[in-house]
Amino acid sequence: MSKIKLQFPDDSVKEFDQGTTVLEVAKSISTSLGKKAVAGKVNGILVDIESAIKQDGKIEILSQDDNKDSLITLRNTASLVFGAAAKEIKKDLHFGEKQSNDDGFYVDTDDKEGQISVDELEDIEKSMEKIIKKNDKIERTLMDKSELVEMFKDDPYKSSLIEAIESVQIPVYKLDNFVDFGYKAVLPSLSGLKHFKLLSVAGAYWQGKSSNPMLQRIYGTAFFNQDDLDADMKRRAEIKERDHRTLGRDLDLFFVDPEVGAGLPYWMPNGATIRRVIERYIIDKEVAWGYQHVYTPILMNLNAYKTSGHWQHYREDMFPPMDMGDGEMLELRPMNCPSHIQIYKHHIRSYRELPVRIAELGMMHRYEKSGALSGLQRVREMTLNDGHTFVALDQIQEEFKRTLQLMVEVYKDFDITDYSFRLSYRDPANTEKYFDDDEMWNRSQSMLKGAMDDLGLDYYEAEGEAAFYGPKLDVQTKTALGNDETLSTIQLDFMQPEQFKLTYVGSDGEEHRPVMIHRGIVSTMERFIAYLIEMYKGAFPTWLAPMQVKIIPVNKEIHGEYAKNLLAELRAKNIRAEIDDRDEKMNYKIRDAQTMKVPYTAVVGDQEMADATVSVRKYGEEDSNSENVAMFVGSVKADINNFSRRNG
Amino acid sequence: MSKIKLQFPDDSVKEFDQGTTVLEVAKSISTSLGKKAVAGKVNGILVDIESAIKQDGKIEILSQDDNKDSLITLRNTASLVFGAAAKEIKKDLHFGEKQSNDDGFYVDTDDKEGQISVDELEDIEKSMEKIIKKNDKIERTLMDKSELVEMFKDDPYKSSLIEAIESVQIPVYKLDNFVDFGYKAVLPSLSGLKHFKLLSVAGAYWQGKSSNPMLQRIYGTAFFNQDDLDADMKRRAEIKERDHRTLGRDLDLFFVDPEVGAGLPYWMPNGATIRRVIERYIIDKEVAWGYQHVYTPILMNLNAYKTSGHWQHYREDMFPPMDMGDGEMLELRPMNCPSHIQIYKHHIRSYRELPVRIAELGMMHRYEKSGALSGLQRVREMTLNDGHTFVALDQIQEEFKRTLQLMVEVYKDFDITDYSFRLSYRDPANTEKYFDDDEMWNRSQSMLKGAMDDLGLDYYEAEGEAAFYGPKLDVQTKTALGNDETLSTIQLDFMQPEQFKLTYVGSDGEEHRPVMIHRGIVSTMERFIAYLIEMYKGAFPTWLAPMQVKIIPVNKEIHGEYAKNLLAELRAKNIRAEIDDRDEKMNYKIRDAQTMKVPYTAVVGDQEMADATVSVRKYGEEDSNSENVAMFVGSVKADINNFSRRNG
Repeated sequence: MSKIKLQFPDDSVKEFDQGTTVLEVAKSISTSLGKKAVAGKVNGILVDIESAIKQDGKIEILSQDDNKDSLITLRNTASLVFGAAAKEIKKDLHFGEKQSNDDGFYVDTDDKEGQISVDELEDIEKSMEKIIKKNDKIERTLMDKSELVEMFKDDPYKSSLIEAIESVQIPVYKLDNFVDFGYKAVLPSLSGLKHFKLLSVAGAYWQGKSSNPMLQRIYGTAFFNQDDLDADMKRRAEIKERDHRTLGRDLDLFFVDPEVGAGLPYWMPNGATIRRVIERYIIDKEVAWGYQHVYTPILMNLNAYKTSGHWQHYREDMFPPMDMGDGEMLELRPMNCPSHIQIYKHHIRSYRELPVRIAELGMMHRYEKSGALSGLQRVREMTLNDGHTFVALDQIQEEFKRTLQLMVEVYKDFDITDYSFRLSYRDPANTEKYFDDDEMWNRSQSMLKGAMDDLGLDYYEAEGEAAFYGPKLDVQTKTALGNDETLSTIQLDFMQPEQFKLTYVGSDGEEHRPVMIHRGIVSTMERFIAYLIEMYKGAFPTWLAPMQVKIIPVNKEIHGEYAKNLLAELRAKNIRAEIDDRDEKMNYKIRDAQTMKVPYTAVVGDQEMADATVSVRKYGEEDSNSENVAMFVGSVKADINNFSRRNG
Repeated sequence: MSKIKLQFPDDSVKEFDQGTTVLEVAKSISTSLGKKAVAGKVNGILVDIESAIKQDGKIEILSQDDNKDSLITLRNTASLVFGAAAKEIKKDLHFGEKQSNDDGFYVDTDDKEGQISVDELEDIEKSMEKIIKKNDKIERTLMDKSELVEMFKDDPYKSSLIEAIESVQIPVYKLDNFVDFGYKAVLPSLSGLKHFKLLSVAGAYWQGKSSNPMLQRIYGTAFFNQDDLDADMKRRAEIKERDHRTLGRDLDLFFVDPEVGAGLPYWMPNGATIRRVIERYIIDKEVAWGYQHVYTPILMNLNAYKTSGHWQHYREDMFPPMDMGDGEMLELRPMNCPSHIQIYKHHIRSYRELPVRIAELGMMHRYEKSGALSGLQRVREMTLNDGHTFVALDQIQEEFKRTLQLMVEVYKDFDITDYSFRLSYRDPANTEKYFDDDEMWNRSQSMLKGAMDDLGLDYYEAEGEAAFYGPKLDVQTKTALGNDETLSTIQLDFMQPEQFKLTYVGSDGEEHRPVMIHRGIVSTMERFIAYLIEMYKGAFPTWLAPMQVKIIPVNKEIHGEYAKNLLAELRAKNIRAEIDDRDEKMNYKIRDAQTMKVPYTAVVGDQEMADATVSVRKYGEEDSNSENVAMFVGSVKADINNFSRRNG
């Protein structure tokens, strides 16, 4: 029998018979390693404990204590047991794609008689436990592809999955009479699977295509010990509580229906109110800061995006162009810069006008893969708080500083504090990758740094993170799910003024090239509000809350008129208020107002009518206070005018 | 020679030789008719005075006094003479399409050496007069198509026009050595053409396709007497003064650039300010009236428009669908109803909630032919003040009345008075053309009429003008150009609730079908603002004016500080004000503020500083008044709060 050489992580090399399994290698080192081993890695690739090694290479034996690959092996085992258990309960169940990863595992299932519901997960878990207890051996075999095709010939999903596999022989796992394939590794025996949990269900298109049937995706997770599982369950509960998608549904803010359009959110009246308040706030703020707000069309002749270079470099993220039938190709804009350039170019500009600040709540469309879409955070249609300032070279630093000041003021109004500034330069070792003007780069990078220092702001510098067309500043935050996110950005652009041949007439009477500053203060409405939902955990400060005051009459007949007068006084001050006059118990209504996170609940009964007061309960507080009506209206108004600022 | 029978307008019938010309027929009746005749109509079709009649039919002899066909014959003659004159001046000139109509005539021209400019029109007119004076005979011949093809073989435009003609023989007109074709009739002789005018030039794509070369279109007109021409010139001057496209340019409100996108307007800061004020006004008004404002995506899966029937019946007006590559076809929405239906369907609705009023400033896209596009009035991208109310059957009359009240209130705020109400019913003789539910139609039509009568509103009834899906009310106005336009609309819809299977739970616990009311109060932002520009002749009332107060310091150095304090006081009250501190003479600045139709011009000099006053000139008034600063600020604010209402 021929021999192979295997190299271990400590660089030692040993010789084995060709075809030795990972488990045999582990055992050859020590009995304990043989017992602990859960899988192997050969040349960096995860392999099953019983897979035979055919060639020389590097080997690593994975135990429970090891990294994520051991967890994936464990979760594969849970996935396999889930399949066996679910199939025992639902005889007509079919299986689609599946995956184990850092976050847990999922299996797509389909049952024409009725999909697996979340209520059934507990039963399936129990059935999984029974199977584990029986502790049947996990049978591993290599099967010929043709044999497997025959075995699954009546199962369209499996048939399609088998067809996609390129090897002639396929590793197959059998548990009693349940057969599955497509795992790189599973545990040596079922006894290693003790701490697992089925988590949730969600619809998922077969192979991710919306034209395909909708399957039911079952999510679960597994760990090697109970503490890790408990910690993970706690983390999931916290995420869920803050997740803007959950809150968006519970507070009736928005919804997305992939059947009607993937990544295209519908803003329900509550969410729309929040958005409208923010839109008006940021427009008024920008107008006060010297921006000229415009409306520009969301469609443009494709030629404009060829001039800007978006079509050449950014095409994958753009929507397909529309042929208008008379030679015109129209494109849904992926960004607003070319539109604002049209506004700039519409007049001859003089140095006296600069900086020219053009701003818009600009709707844009970007093609995101359907798998990447998420609530309001990752969408295909978005409205950006966009602005482009056209400045002379020597105005860069001052305008950058001014934009930063505006940004900081806005952050204070929203009480946003958990962020960091990232200053992105070009890579000094690869200057040829960037717009070619050394002096411009050096000068502008030091201008940005100078402005940050002037304002005494903390920041970190990131070489090589600049855009092709200029250096930039990003404000970085994290979402509830832990993803990095850019909230605001200020970017210098030397390139588009060149490409679109922008000019202004200088004091010398000659034409000069302006520099463009792209900036977004509160990002897209979608992303920003997703961020705020998570930051405020759904409890919006009064100025943003869809409903600001909920009035609850103790008795509709007796106190209804008094409640209506209070409502009129509040509405006269543009306070969003309504009376809850449903036929429900008072405590139910108070609880409901708390659930909907309404900032003020105002109960009115006999005492209040007699004293011309209201009994006010603020959101999150346990007690109510009796307040004079005029005082109450005034304090709500003051609360609104204060935005989200702490201590005014 | 065989005979033909011709029937005259008085029903008398006479016999003529086959091939008799129209002129000969006229002469046969009377010498004076033979002299007065300019053209004929055979079987209702305009024909040349010298065309030979081949078959039995109806005949009418047209004289100068007759209707529009005589004018078209006259304008054809002017068009022919224009061609001869222009070709004399510009040897390389080519001619494209041409037309004579109610409004005048136009001829498309092309000269590679330089297009005809507006400055050249006078010279061409003079040259036309010379040709008329010479009074050469207009030679008329029938030429074989093949002969004509040969004659114009070097002229691509003419060649293409000849190819499109289906007859074998083509009537051709010659004036000296100028040859043209494509006129149904021209005057018997040049002496009839006395009162004409070349009006303007504009770019026009060859055959209306933006992928084709841009030609120069020359507009002109002609009348049989000077009084008519004078009256027409006066009318044109008035239209131009009111035309929203002219005012839109002069007041820097918006522009459209077909190279970037036909029918896609860019709102400059001035126009955008007007639009923003109106958008906020109408949203606040609707929210106060119980509407729930939402934001919904402008794209939807094409399937939704198949369900709604838009795709089957309205496809020509829709943009081409976009293939998203995973089986999803997305469509830019041509209307917002299916979007609001999604909002309605997102919750189970109870009879207690009805009427549910969903509103949105909803962006839509409709494909208009490029020839039909006009400024803000006819565009391809528009934002509609849209609303859909879902009511129970017995709520129709009350909700219709309420919507009318809202409409009338809004009209008062804008001081819109020149309109009429049109109530559109189904055609009682063709009920099968409409949604099939007799009782529903009868009941709802009488409900609408009842509501109008209750409110004491004048209206006219139009049978057969209803939509397929229900009766409606339209508010009709006229544009500056004299076109009819619908400003507001309220439409009942029995059909879409059926198609989308909408329901609410009644007090009986059963599911019922609601009725949908589509309504638009201020139309699309584009069309409404086009209308307002023309109605106000650009002099927007203070609450809408882009700039409300222009402050002019007599001397920038001496009075600059005082001006700045005034500015701060105005801005603190949210009044849109700015200082004109350009290096220009004071009178120039005052004139400029009048040209831009700024409601208040506030001049500040020595006297004003000493007295703490401003010298205020209102737009359109000749005199200035000295006003105390606080009084002035207060009166501007009061003016704004009063909207456009007369007498408060």
